[in-house]
Amino acid sequence: MSRFDETSGFLIDLDGTVWKGLELIEGAAESIQELQKAGKRVAALSNRGTHSRRQVASILQEKGVNLAPKDIILTSHVAAEYLRKHHPNEAVWVLGEGGLIEELQESGIPLASLPEDAAWLVVSLHTGVTYHDLDQAFQAVMNGARIIATNNDRAYPSSRGLSIDVAGMLGAIEATTGKTPEVVVGKPSVHMFECAMDRLQMTVEKTMIVGDSLDSDIAMGKYGIKTALVLSGNTTIEMISDVERPPDYVFHSLKDLAGT
Amino acid sequence: MSRFDETSGFLIDLDGTVWKGLELIEGAAESIQELQKAGKRVAALSNRGTHSRRQVASILQEKGVNLAPKDIILTSHVAAEYLRKHHPNEAVWVLGEGGLIEELQESGIPLASLPEDAAWLVVSLHTGVTYHDLDQAFQAVMNGARIIATNNDRAYPSSRGLSIDVAGMLGAIEATTGKTPEVVVGKPSVHMFECAMDRLQMTVEKTMIVGDSLDSDIAMGKYGIKTALVLSGNTTIEMISDVERPPDYVFHSLKDLAGT
Repeated sequence: MSRFDETSGFLIDLDGTVWKGLELIEGAAESIQELQKAGKRVAALSNRGTHSRRQVASILQEKGVNLAPKDIILTSHVAAEYLRKHHPNEAVWVLGEGGLIEELQESGIPLASLPEDAAWLVVSLHTGVTYHDLDQAFQAVMNGARIIATNNDRAYPSSRGLSIDVAGMLGAIEATTGKTPEVVVGKPSVHMFECAMDRLQMTVEKTMIVGDSLDSDIAMGKYGIKTALVLSGNTTIEMISDVERPPDYVFHSLKDLAGT
Repeated sequence: MSRFDETSGFLIDLDGTVWKGLELIEGAAESIQELQKAGKRVAALSNRGTHSRRQVASILQEKGVNLAPKDIILTSHVAAEYLRKHHPNEAVWVLGEGGLIEELQESGIPLASLPEDAAWLVVSLHTGVTYHDLDQAFQAVMNGARIIATNNDRAYPSSRGLSIDVAGMLGAIEATTGKTPEVVVGKPSVHMFECAMDRLQMTVEKTMIVGDSLDSDIAMGKYGIKTALVLSGNTTIEMISDVERPPDYVFHSLKDLAGT
């Protein structure tokens, strides 16, 4: 850990770094524990907008990863906080799942009882979406609701390999209403970054993001934090040469970072 | 009818011309009967890809409009015929309803048993669409299926006013796969025109299209047929001044055309 004496805060991506489709990556639980034991502050970061922080904390707990809900920064929470800060008391319609609704309620965002009454449509992945849900979201936007999305990923790793993600829900609404999201809060957005730094209470110089994605994790280096790429997810070492902002460090997996 | 002595074939749009959301427009049944009695050939034309011709003929029959299934040109049928002519024996995956599947089967198009095995994804409105359906269609395209769409309308008139249409299904697939349809058969495409003329067996000079849409019906004038706009649907008389190709005739409704 001596190599990271000057780093006191770690933002750790979940998908492809800590787990893959909810299966822990070897050594991930122990690595997070080692960082915590060494006195580092650790927060997890994920573009998932389907779950609440409470839900993810509980799943991680079962797998031996101890993080409080507040130390888990999800786009469901960040979207809710964005609305609370910038558009308080504006009612929303949700095209998404229960975890997202839980976060909106926790942030005190009013849920519209009819699509027509919503000032905002909040869009995330909805793996139970139906025609009726899409049509309700369409009605909301046609009646003036602005669009905020948790993220805009095209696909996510599933039991089928890849499955259709938020971009599918958004694509349906965009193509039929001609409207696009005004805000997408997922990494590498400043909204996600600010939420994470609020939680860590650390200077950017002392903070590092660890993740498997060049586009969403390593791209957060633009805010001045250090970056470490892990090769346990979607990125291979060869892909680094193509990017404008290469990572400061590269590790096989989280285990190798914690073991240094 | 003397005014139309030189017109022997009528292509009559359904939505907004003969009916509105399956409610007959006043005088439409009688007008079609008058045209038929006067010895005119009549075929109905619709961008709907949800139904089969047999289904629509049966609904029209109940309302007093006598047209054989073969005299009803729907995009479900035109898409099936396009595939039969240009890509025989190539298996398809369907993101759409039972009527579309019926037409594909009638044209002898093989249905793939797995999305991965499909050479084509056929997309139409699917008012019962689920996440699973969207994901299956996504799998088909990610595995190389090309896209054909019955039409690309954003919305259709429903009990709610407007509801999300084919562009929603297509938008979900396009946004997540990065692929667009190679063929859209709906009016004013040449595929729809050729199918209709095959049925009428008439020269273009002796044929007229009657419909309520400048973009899809009156635009068919580009193939050399005469055009008559009816104001019983989505178009007002003021909108004519904006178009490159104004209609040859304008009538309040089908009744006024047949009464001339």
